[in-house]
Amino acid sequence: MIKAGIIGATGYAGAELVRLLLGHKEVEIRWYGSRSYIDEKYADVYGNMFQIVEDACLDDNIEELARQVDVIFTATPQGYLAGVLNEEILRHAKVIDLSADYRIKDVGVYEKWYQIEHKSPQFIGEAVYGLCEVNREKVRQARLVANPGCYTTCSILTAYPLVKEGLVEPNSLIVDAKSGTSGAGRGAKLPNLFCEVNENMKAYGVATHRHTPEIEEQLGYAAGEAVTISFTPHLAPMNRGILATEYASLKKVRQADGTLAYPDYKQVKAAYDKYYQDEYFVRVLDEGVYPETKWVEGSNFVDIGFKIDTRTGRIVMMGAIDNLVKGAAGQAVQNMNILFGFAENEGLKLVPMFP
Amino acid sequence: MIKAGIIGATGYAGAELVRLLLGHKEVEIRWYGSRSYIDEKYADVYGNMFQIVEDACLDDNIEELARQVDVIFTATPQGYLAGVLNEEILRHAKVIDLSADYRIKDVGVYEKWYQIEHKSPQFIGEAVYGLCEVNREKVRQARLVANPGCYTTCSILTAYPLVKEGLVEPNSLIVDAKSGTSGAGRGAKLPNLFCEVNENMKAYGVATHRHTPEIEEQLGYAAGEAVTISFTPHLAPMNRGILATEYASLKKVRQADGTLAYPDYKQVKAAYDKYYQDEYFVRVLDEGVYPETKWVEGSNFVDIGFKIDTRTGRIVMMGAIDNLVKGAAGQAVQNMNILFGFAENEGLKLVPMFP
Amino acid sequence: MIKAGIIGATGYAGAELVRLLLGHKEVEIRWYGSRSYIDEKYADVYGNMFQIVEDACLDDNIEELARQVDVIFTATPQGYLAGVLNEEILRHAKVIDLSADYRIKDVGVYEKWYQIEHKSPQFIGEAVYGLCEVNREKVRQARLVANPGCYTTCSILTAYPLVKEGLVEPNSLIVDAKSGTSGAGRGAKLPNLFCEVNENMKAYGVATHRHTPEIEEQLGYAAGEAVTISFTPHLAPMNRGILATEYASLKKVRQADGTLAYPDYKQVKAAYDKYYQDEYFVRVLDEGVYPETKWVEGSNFVDIGFKIDTRTGRIVMMGAIDNLVKGAAGQAVQNMNILFGFAENEGLKLVPMFP
Amino acid sequence: MIKAGIIGATGYAGAELVRLLLGHKEVEIRWYGSRSYIDEKYADVYGNMFQIVEDACLDDNIEELARQVDVIFTATPQGYLAGVLNEEILRHAKVIDLSADYRIKDVGVYEKWYQIEHKSPQFIGEAVYGLCEVNREKVRQARLVANPGCYTTCSILTAYPLVKEGLVEPNSLIVDAKSGTSGAGRGAKLPNLFCEVNENMKAYGVATHRHTPEIEEQLGYAAGEAVTISFTPHLAPMNRGILATEYASLKKVRQADGTLAYPDYKQVKAAYDKYYQDEYFVRVLDEGVYPETKWVEGSNFVDIGFKIDTRTGRIVMMGAIDNLVKGAAGQAVQNMNILFGFAENEGLKLVPMFP
Repeated sequence: MIKAGIIGATGYAGAELVRLLLGHKEVEIRWYGSRSYIDEKYADVYGNMFQIVEDACLDDNIEELARQVDVIFTATPQGYLAGVLNEEILRHAKVIDLSADYRIKDVGVYEKWYQIEHKSPQFIGEAVYGLCEVNREKVRQARLVANPGCYTTCSILTAYPLVKEGLVEPNSLIVDAKSGTSGAGRGAKLPNLFCEVNENMKAYGVATHRHTPEIEEQLGYAAGEAVTISFTPHLAPMNRGILATEYASLKKVRQADGTLAYPDYKQVKAAYDKYYQDEYFVRVLDEGVYPETKWVEGSNFVDIGFKIDTRTGRIVMMGAIDNLVKGAAGQAVQNMNILFGFAENEGLKLVPMFP
Repeated sequence: MIKAGIIGATGYAGAELVRLLLGHKEVEIRWYGSRSYIDEKYADVYGNMFQIVEDACLDDNIEELARQVDVIFTATPQGYLAGVLNEEILRHAKVIDLSADYRIKDVGVYEKWYQIEHKSPQFIGEAVYGLCEVNREKVRQARLVANPGCYTTCSILTAYPLVKEGLVEPNSLIVDAKSGTSGAGRGAKLPNLFCEVNENMKAYGVATHRHTPEIEEQLGYAAGEAVTISFTPHLAPMNRGILATEYASLKKVRQADGTLAYPDYKQVKAAYDKYYQDEYFVRVLDEGVYPETKWVEGSNFVDIGFKIDTRTGRIVMMGAIDNLVKGAAGQAVQNMNILFGFAENEGLKLVPMFP
Repeated sequence: MIKAGIIGATGYAGAELVRLLLGHKEVEIRWYGSRSYIDEKYADVYGNMFQIVEDACLDDNIEELARQVDVIFTATPQGYLAGVLNEEILRHAKVIDLSADYRIKDVGVYEKWYQIEHKSPQFIGEAVYGLCEVNREKVRQARLVANPGCYTTCSILTAYPLVKEGLVEPNSLIVDAKSGTSGAGRGAKLPNLFCEVNENMKAYGVATHRHTPEIEEQLGYAAGEAVTISFTPHLAPMNRGILATEYASLKKVRQADGTLAYPDYKQVKAAYDKYYQDEYFVRVLDEGVYPETKWVEGSNFVDIGFKIDTRTGRIVMMGAIDNLVKGAAGQAVQNMNILFGFAENEGLKLVPMFP
Repeated sequence: MIKAGIIGATGYAGAELVRLLLGHKEVEIRWYGSRSYIDEKYADVYGNMFQIVEDACLDDNIEELARQVDVIFTATPQGYLAGVLNEEILRHAKVIDLSADYRIKDVGVYEKWYQIEHKSPQFIGEAVYGLCEVNREKVRQARLVANPGCYTTCSILTAYPLVKEGLVEPNSLIVDAKSGTSGAGRGAKLPNLFCEVNENMKAYGVATHRHTPEIEEQLGYAAGEAVTISFTPHLAPMNRGILATEYASLKKVRQADGTLAYPDYKQVKAAYDKYYQDEYFVRVLDEGVYPETKWVEGSNFVDIGFKIDTRTGRIVMMGAIDNLVKGAAGQAVQNMNILFGFAENEGLKLVPMFP
């Protein structure tokens, strides 16, 4: 039994962490940190937790917290962790950061896209990008895990095998993503009001969204070269879920008969299987079946489908996750499981809820 | 480890049973019965079950099923179980019926409200009405459990202590209930289409809904006399959840100083506590807090709040459940736990999902 | 062609006024008042108005405004108009107030329920309660119209004929109302965020909602005596619409054969027809048909249905409106039409939008 | 005053036609055709029409209909009109077909994508593709108008000026479209049930959707060469609205200083203005503003925004329409206005409804 603390426990991602950790048999939550609700009962902030969580919210004194727990989750705004992290904290506790502070290796790229000065770039080097299916071995050794963004988790995993295996032109990649509104957080902002979001679809952050460089960096490692992509997020009138529809030009590959041709279904499927067939959380759907966000709701699954379009020479890849689970809290717990040697799916064998 | 079979596994309630039983460590599902999808993979009918359930759907041969399993859940249309049930089946397996066939003791009342002839009234006597918090001891001995309706579970539990304790006039009770659309089932009917339900509220079955006599019978037992109530169900544009808003005239009660007066907050709260303070699944909220369906989503909780209105001499009681969990599959599992001597909340310690 | 000004043009009710007045051939909007958005283009605040409204927002200098226009609409928080109204303003322009400031004749009742001191009670006497179908003749002569609340319009009109004709016990009336979220306004508040409202139903303001005394006062006039009712508003996950489900005990009435009996369908229908058969905006539905909020969306209609329940001796009345139209801006325009002698449905012959 | 008949008046597009024509001062609806509801009151099928439409539904005897009216709208399944159209009908009445039967000039392409034999290819030649902003002059002379599809209207108009002016590579075009569920029609099908669509996003018809060749044909005319594109429709949990997000590679163009460079904002804006600045229904939004489907709801507008991404050499174009208005019934009325010489926006000056 390990002890965990959460800083930012009253945001939607923080609350999802609470939900997941309460069902995890190896962890006990010791610290519900929330600057906005200090001393208020956690269950008064989230009515679903009534009679389940009796604790009150605490402040975000991370140094004190580090002395009390084995693992710290920071579900905080960009810049918070970079502003407070130090050796002392990392000596006492593992840190899993759900913000973007340590996701991007090039601090210049971070500062350009986030428009924030990075206050502790000295930890960027050792931070491990916690995309479990790709970086499992590195996570195992880490003190500091940079938990991937929601869009990025979905976008990268959907395209990764094809980029890695050279079946698509990396720079042709276009990611058109649709997200539920919980991704926008629990801040009381006009654009997130029910009447503004409901019955509405819109794109935002077009060509400027901050998850773009994160996707590019990771797919760049897969491609073995710098990658530049188009990424467009959209706000959808639903609570949870991300659907990423991804377009890429297929590369012709040498076939058995010596000719060059677009890879066929079996070849593409084999590429996905190579990376995912033993992965508990990645489900490559049957031929002709495309993911639906509702099929993964409440779970840590990534569902992937694809369609080869020889007419255009492109492949359309589709991936779906629950943005609060595999896109945030679930992946954070998965990283914790790896860090502490628990079964990777402990606390995460959640059957998606439908309807 | 017991074995379970489900007849009607591809309706929404059946699918929720599957979800819950998959997370129950003492049960194994052996039979996914579905007349409409025989031989089709269950996961092709419910995409969320991909790589989780590998079985195909079977027919509804309940006699064969009874020989293979310890418990049978029937999540079937009214009249099905009454048409096939026999001694032989009950000798082999416990039966938990999610339909209305054995809920009402007076077969004439059943036939009048349901407009169906009851084909096996001989089993009505022994059937136990599976409202666990009220009938726990009787369930323990049962062979046949009549799992309560969704509206009825919520409506009864919300008012039960006050009726039982004589704090309200039973015949003054008015139940105005709002339900998510999953309560209407998965049938392809025009009124349940997205565009007909979305952005819409309506009442239906006004003064004629078939859950009315079920509520009246059970509250009648509590009151010790026949009870007649008003019940109005409404369809709300959401997937899950029932909110019952219940109005009743308060009875004046003898106070400490000898006068007659309406019961105050403490007296009403004490009545609720008398029946529910040790109940895991019933949460009587703090003063001034009223239930929200989202706070119980995905869980087996019943949340209850109330407001005394001395201006009108009435009390407003509000109860919320997830119609597919405490209103159907969750309560069925709770009944199973009681029947087989498992911890009553085994497989049901589900933290509500928010948002 | 008259000139109109709106103070509070950037709230949802104000914006709906703009939509309706733009389609009204006798009115020109001269003043888009919005304290929060002074000098910003109105179409930048409401993207739907792009290339339709070119004006920028102005301040709320109502004295200046009164000199420029024929009619002023105040879609402002409670207390605003009472704080600024004077003789001078009323000499220059008619005022239609969408707030509650002049709806309640007893200033003590107002101050008790609203917890605000009324700053200009001297105008309460002359203000006409603008429930057009009831007070049409008084509105015609008014300088100051108190436009009814959304819940109240729906609640009163649904019960009015039966109370007026003595077919129901006024004090038995229970109004259980469900409202879309636009009724909560455009303020950036946490409880109105998409993720808090979506997939959720809850009651609020139980036994304390400020529309209660307004309903009681108006139904009291109809009953010829003071009336006390129960009113419970609920928040529903939809943008627009109010559904009021109303319960009342029927009074037995003398029948043709001399006996006393509950009124039957024809008698109740006749009562509705007596008041509404010539009303353009009130639609009493066919027998057995109950209103749905979607059927009135975007229009100024009030749809009414009812069910007599002799089993309980009660009648269930149901009314539906679009809260922003008949419940706010539409009724305000209807009042304007009456005030200025236009056809009462000018600019309001809107066919409800479905789906 | 002309007379109109509708075949398929009880589908969602047909019902929207009814709504729009009721507000059109030059038209009278004489025939509400609906094979499924013959002799039923139209208002019993669409409750919003209560006391507005008193007519009952008629059959689909188009020959008789043609003798009675000036214009026939067919809002029917693919193949219906092609199966019944003849010279006699076209001699008597103008026909505006909302199905795909006459949209595609190459009958082979039609038969391949629709998997239907075309029964009257002899009329394909004279049929005019009724994309008003592009084909206005041809529509004026037509007897038979092929009203464009919903996705196609949005997709084509969003990209048309840039393809026509040679600013983008036509074959690089990728259209990722999101549609409200009314586009799926009013058929009682399981995938369109509320609980299946709500809280869900999915792609469908990937690389095989039948609107693809229609977009390709029309953009091919603009490009002056055959065009092949990727088109992916998605189902969004909302009633109305289409958002098309379109990606294309920019062509470098000769700049004032003689160099080749990607077109800048002004150059792209100028291309849009060249085609749309006098168009009432096309609104090219301000720089940095992107369309939202809610901003056009209930109206005939097309809102367009774009972002040049020099990092990737692509442009992202976004277009939004109400699928039932500009995507179906509204454009049909616009075509009727052109055919009969009415003001093109008569009956269509609908202010979008928000929220």
